[in-house]
Amino acid sequence: MSKKTLPIGIFDSGIGGLTVMQEITRVLPGEDIVYLGDTARVPYGTKSKETVIKYSLENAEFLTSCGIKLLVVACNTASAYALKELSSRVSVPVVGVIEPGASMAVGITRTKKVGVIGTEGTIRSGAYFEAIKKIDSKVVVYLKACPLFVPLAEEGWTDNQVAYLTATAYLESFTEEGIDTLVLGCTHYPLLKRTIKRVLGEDVVLIDSAEATSYEVRRVLTEHKLLRTRSTRGRYKFFVTDSPHRFQYVGARFFNAPIKARLVSIGN
Amino acid sequence: MSKKTLPIGIFDSGIGGLTVMQEITRVLPGEDIVYLGDTARVPYGTKSKETVIKYSLENAEFLTSCGIKLLVVACNTASAYALKELSSRVSVPVVGVIEPGASMAVGITRTKKVGVIGTEGTIRSGAYFEAIKKIDSKVVVYLKACPLFVPLAEEGWTDNQVAYLTATAYLESFTEEGIDTLVLGCTHYPLLKRTIKRVLGEDVVLIDSAEATSYEVRRVLTEHKLLRTRSTRGRYKFFVTDSPHRFQYVGARFFNAPIKARLVSIGN
Repeated sequence: MSKKTLPIGIFDSGIGGLTVMQEITRVLPGEDIVYLGDTARVPYGTKSKETVIKYSLENAEFLTSCGIKLLVVACNTASAYALKELSSRVSVPVVGVIEPGASMAVGITRTKKVGVIGTEGTIRSGAYFEAIKKIDSKVVVYLKACPLFVPLAEEGWTDNQVAYLTATAYLESFTEEGIDTLVLGCTHYPLLKRTIKRVLGEDVVLIDSAEATSYEVRRVLTEHKLLRTRSTRGRYKFFVTDSPHRFQYVGARFFNAPIKARLVSIGN
Repeated sequence: MSKKTLPIGIFDSGIGGLTVMQEITRVLPGEDIVYLGDTARVPYGTKSKETVIKYSLENAEFLTSCGIKLLVVACNTASAYALKELSSRVSVPVVGVIEPGASMAVGITRTKKVGVIGTEGTIRSGAYFEAIKKIDSKVVVYLKACPLFVPLAEEGWTDNQVAYLTATAYLESFTEEGIDTLVLGCTHYPLLKRTIKRVLGEDVVLIDSAEATSYEVRRVLTEHKLLRTRSTRGRYKFFVTDSPHRFQYVGARFFNAPIKARLVSIGN
């Protein structure tokens, strides 16, 4: 069997990575995908580096045991803290969500002022700051943790007054700072795009890491001659570490399609 | 050594149980306490029954290994799902937060209409409904999950417009239903008391399970002749399963005093 026909593996702390998976299925419709949501230990965003690395390695071990050709770390916090460890321990190419989003932001900004929003962990890690500075040290980076955006997205409160006031409180300083590009550094945040645009105005470009990551996945697969080209759509498998019920229910909103997930035990 | 001099053990999924601990220190100032916050796996409120039971048993095992005379399950979700398992497996008396809150609410309501708010897990479990009905089957119970209250309390947004609009969205149906008593069925919620009162008015009595639980702890200790009476204040130890930094920082707001916590590894 050719390695090309193996699935892509994706993991996230829970549901958010489904926005990344959805973009990958759009850009690479022929690929099979195995998705793992670590719903028993979600969220990663408020947890320490050591804990996030440990959980990420366990997730990667499960996915590589399924037989995959490439690993996507579809969680910003895990990408921020664990990408280096994962790349050195996993035998297949590993793609995170931070470098692609940072790279796209640098390519788009004209004012050289870029904002980045994410979980406490992602922002505290400094990973976006470093990734952007590495590409263009002249870009000024403004960082802001937005812890309430994840629960708002999961509650489905993405367009109401609570979401708007929360977004205003978190984002208003960006307007004074004069950013023209904002990286949505958490996979939940694309669900709040409309509200974020209402606060920042139409002139600020929102970078969806999910989209940027899907192009990076295509590039890496092409480079490694692992791209699968066929006319039929790929098959998708979903695994979760806690009861599938909530994942299926909330996840359908993130994936824009019904989901059937299976329970697996990881790390215990 | 007399069993009396052993500490009380308290566990919670994370920080919220500190509101329960604070009440216990107020009612029983001479008792030593060992607190465990399972911050590596927080929150429990969105997780399944099976997962919450597994985590709760592991937490209890750690605390009993420390040598305790009574176990307090200071987490509503864990009390809802795991109290029966804990009581049958642990050799010391076990006190949860649900029965004391339910009992206090039944004693206070005049309209026989009681509201209960909590996490998705606590509400879905039906534990408050059953506990109240068991005491007085004539009481009508209105349940509402309020998933955004925990992140609001942790963000410190307890008195602003976002908190007020969120509380209004969750609680306005209670006014129509005519409740006169509301059980705060999550240990984070006491931080939002003022905002909840603004929405419901001064006539609705808020039942803080933390307070009710501390009286129950005193009752059980007295019954088992385990109450410690001395003039000096007890000593407190805090353990967490993830890096202590965030727990200490956010926890100080919940406990109204500085905290020093130690990292322990549990369940892995």
